Amino acid sequence: MPKVSEDHLAARRRQILDGARTCFAEFGYDGATVRRLESATGLSRGAIFHHYRDKDALFLALAHEDAERMADIAATQGLVQVMRDMLTHPERFDWLGTRLEIARKIKNDADFREQWTERSAELTDATLRRLERQKERGRLREDVPTGVLLGYLDLVLDGLVTRLASGRATDQLESVLDLVEESVRRQK
Amino acid sequence: MPKVSEDHLAARRRQILDGARTCFAEFGYDGATVRRLESATGLSRGAIFHHYRDKDALFLALAHEDAERMADIAATQGLVQVMRDMLTHPERFDWLGTRLEIARKIKNDADFREQWTERSAELTDATLRRLERQKERGRLREDVPTGVLLGYLDLVLDGLVTRLASGRATDQLESVLDLVEESVRRQK
Repeated sequence: MPKVSEDHLAARRRQILDGARTCFAEFGYDGATVRRLESATGLSRGAIFHHYRDKDALFLALAHEDAERMADIAATQGLVQVMRDMLTHPERFDWLGTRLEIARKIKNDADFREQWTERSAELTDATLRRLERQKERGRLREDVPTGVLLGYLDLVLDGLVTRLASGRATDQLESVLDLVEESVRRQK
Repeated sequence: MPKVSEDHLAARRRQILDGARTCFAEFGYDGATVRRLESATGLSRGAIFHHYRDKDALFLALAHEDAERMADIAATQGLVQVMRDMLTHPERFDWLGTRLEIARKIKNDADFREQWTERSAELTDATLRRLERQKERGRLREDVPTGVLLGYLDLVLDGLVTRLASGRATDQLESVLDLVEESVRRQK
């Protein structure tokens, strides 16, 4: 495939994903109808679904993008920093509320759940690698298995997504995250 | 009002709430149509909405029941015990997935959010009282304000609700809760 065509493809996909993200954030998963996706992306349904098979595929592609971006931060600065960034820039995570709406889908649709888990694996892996490196450096507590620390951070992240998505008060959450960070550290 | 009538009223409300809880758990908030609520409660829409103004009112009544029950446990055994019970009997909290579906509603509907917060206040108060009592007994860490500890436990609870509602793996979560409990305790 010639280079220009690849660039064009990437740009078109970017346009679709950006529009879809805005559309999900504004209208939710069910509310993001084909008509609204057309309007948000500025493209026809034919063009959209040429690149992404269906709404699920669009959703999973966005989840994958987020996981990649979060994994980059988690790999170097840890998952708590990912959460701090979410607190500082909640608007970047506007669409995450959609994750809550699809909880039922994740629960009842094994195939979708598997794909969802695959898309999130990158973040889990990056967090785990970072935890293991911190452990080697003697910065991690050693009385709790690393897998449990990972599960702990992941649970807090779920809580934060839920909190942000429901627009409830987030005051004191910075101090809460300090506590979370300290809880996984080696005590002096 | 004569006693028999009050008993009847209470029984009728019980019947409505039990049916609604099952219906929300099975079909979700949007899926719990009037027809399905009739079928789940065994009562006509007239009877249901005579006792509860609308679906929101039913939902808030269930949220209030949960908050009361959780508050009883939180007051004597703490919020972490509430979470342990959720892990042990996830089926009792089946309908909580509905809480995630309504995150958007909580975010965008200030009136509903206020009512929701009111219904949850009991649990927050009970947890706070318990934390303060533990503090007096010297069992709580003193280097972190009690309000932050409360916010921390509340965030983890949100995470747990989300985890259970999406049916993802809960292994290791007991150890995670041990870590959470230890994080609020006074270190020896």
